Amino acid sequence: MTADHRAGRLERVRAALAERDTDALLLGPSADYRWLLGYEPPGLERLTMLVVSAAGDDHLVVPALEAPLAIEHLGDLGVKVLAWQETEDPIALVVGALAAAGSASQSRLAVGDHLFATFLLRLQAAMPSARYTIGSVVTGPLRRIKDQAEIDALARAGAAIDAVVDRLGEWVVPGRAERDVAADLDVAIRAAGHEQTNFTIVGSGPNGASPHHIAGHRVIQPGDAVVIDIGGRVDGYCSDTTRTLVVGEPPEGFAELYEVLRTAQAAGCDAVRPGVTAASVDAACRDIITEAGYGEYFIHRTGHGIGLEEHEDPYIVAGNDEPLSPGMAFSVEPGIYLPGRHGARIEDIVVCTEDGGRRLNTTSRELRVVG
Amino acid sequence: MTADHRAGRLERVRAALAERDTDALLLGPSADYRWLLGYEPPGLERLTMLVVSAAGDDHLVVPALEAPLAIEHLGDLGVKVLAWQETEDPIALVVGALAAAGSASQSRLAVGDHLFATFLLRLQAAMPSARYTIGSVVTGPLRRIKDQAEIDALARAGAAIDAVVDRLGEWVVPGRAERDVAADLDVAIRAAGHEQTNFTIVGSGPNGASPHHIAGHRVIQPGDAVVIDIGGRVDGYCSDTTRTLVVGEPPEGFAELYEVLRTAQAAGCDAVRPGVTAASVDAACRDIITEAGYGEYFIHRTGHGIGLEEHEDPYIVAGNDEPLSPGMAFSVEPGIYLPGRHGARIEDIVVCTEDGGRRLNTTSRELRVVG
Repeated sequence: MTADHRAGRLERVRAALAERDTDALLLGPSADYRWLLGYEPPGLERLTMLVVSAAGDDHLVVPALEAPLAIEHLGDLGVKVLAWQETEDPIALVVGALAAAGSASQSRLAVGDHLFATFLLRLQAAMPSARYTIGSVVTGPLRRIKDQAEIDALARAGAAIDAVVDRLGEWVVPGRAERDVAADLDVAIRAAGHEQTNFTIVGSGPNGASPHHIAGHRVIQPGDAVVIDIGGRVDGYCSDTTRTLVVGEPPEGFAELYEVLRTAQAAGCDAVRPGVTAASVDAACRDIITEAGYGEYFIHRTGHGIGLEEHEDPYIVAGNDEPLSPGMAFSVEPGIYLPGRHGARIEDIVVCTEDGGRRLNTTSRELRVVG
Repeated sequence: MTADHRAGRLERVRAALAERDTDALLLGPSADYRWLLGYEPPGLERLTMLVVSAAGDDHLVVPALEAPLAIEHLGDLGVKVLAWQETEDPIALVVGALAAAGSASQSRLAVGDHLFATFLLRLQAAMPSARYTIGSVVTGPLRRIKDQAEIDALARAGAAIDAVVDRLGEWVVPGRAERDVAADLDVAIRAAGHEQTNFTIVGSGPNGASPHHIAGHRVIQPGDAVVIDIGGRVDGYCSDTTRTLVVGEPPEGFAELYEVLRTAQAAGCDAVRPGVTAASVDAACRDIITEAGYGEYFIHRTGHGIGLEEHEDPYIVAGNDEPLSPGMAFSVEPGIYLPGRHGARIEDIVVCTEDGGRRLNTTSRELRVVG
């Protein structure tokens, strides 16, 4: 990302702040921070805080020992670096930066959604009359429309994770523990070009009925259905895809259940186009599953936005009546979970284009038999 | 960790709450949560919140799709699971749990230090008359005294990272880029028994003067000093050690600088014993560096506590007059950083015992020449 990109994004944040009568956006290390500044500093107990003010002055309050890193990355962007020493109070520097930018004690401040509570409480103690709101009110509408470079990065991430999916049969074999499969997937995800693995869900047999199951000691058995949900990060952007396999002969009734799911997932993808609501994409999947009698076993929303974060705006969920726009990217991932028996999920990342949905994951969605 | 351990820790939190006139501790997925419940659930945009109340009723508010995972891990601990559906408001369940435990709207609540601001703001909106404080006021004094099992885990982590340090000469060679060295370190850290790599700082030449440098494209040169600071997680507990190497002939003045640093780091470790303050360990290192004329180039505190978190209580810093106690574990890691030239740091994890400091990292601290 060039400095120009960053300056443009800072300007758009400034305009969004002004539009919402908000004086400043305060960000710790986070996806919002990365989106604006192109790098993410360490984010532990020492406060790093970017202060973007509607009035036009930007400051970065940063621990002195991380100031060289910040200065290197900021270049000539015009963000003023305020370094604090270990025995200083960084919150006082934030208050000073707000004052310098013209924000009074009664200002209206948007704070990053993932800012740690410990920092927010200290801010509130220092500025008790300020009004606080979440930062995604400002950044969400900007970040959820991806530009071409971002879509290209998501597409590269999609291709990388698909390359791992193509090899699932090598690892998902009877007699292997879920956690050993997960370890292999972790290695393969990074070997496929991801700079990091975000998650490796391997839910075999009854564990597949727990959508966010953590791969454990269970040994994969002949006749298991196995849910594999994997993702990582390529050039900062996330991949995320799910396929469900069966090991040998599918369990009783599973093939029928899977066919309902496959039809529902396709209907969800097909429903994507500019102007339709996020909720209607959820309904497109859910109605088919409900009509087939599995409604109570589809226990989560249909999808989530994706980008610099694994989960971000827009959420594909009942009640979200926001219309889709070109450039939005999100998962379509219905699932059916029969407690104590097995589960199934199919997930693709879909980008909304002028012509409808474009899937970034293209591996087969037919029921695969392995082992 | 057995259920008994967990019940005992919950009881200690309850006693600490009562002692501080605090009604409840509210935790999202975090080290505090892991310390109490022995596992960490996914922590993204869906609220998971453990409510430990002084009055004695514990609740876990959890997304419905993650309820199976929670129930599996909680076993018969007696924590009541409150699952919320995708279109429900989980904050209302938290408020209900507090009411069920007898906490009124004016209650005093401790919230996990790393709880996301988005959740704290929603809590504050739902319970505007409650008073909020940070959770580490409650959990910090308990967690910073490690029990024997925790010290054993930290020792295993120390041995695992030392095994990587022993092989640094294989990777740190002239002509290689920092980021390639970091990639090798990542693989080696996991191969040595860590379940994950936490960080791989490789600061060569002038980059070594940036204490938290992110390994980049710079190619290691003959005559470079190279700061290697690496850590990971073994059975949930963190390792963290730093050694500084020189590639061939050390730069001018570096051997003298390093000898000052080595003496200072040893003095810091030797100062550790029950009853001395954290600040005095910082001073033991700093005074030697200052007397040698490098005071202004030691730009960070001497150390940080370590355990389930990379950085936690107690911090070894001027102004922290807390006396050390047996069972505390922390880094002793002075550094000297000459901007534009080079840096040096030596770091060991030290446990305070009745008999003084016990170092968990034992690789040589002599200046090593590689390449």
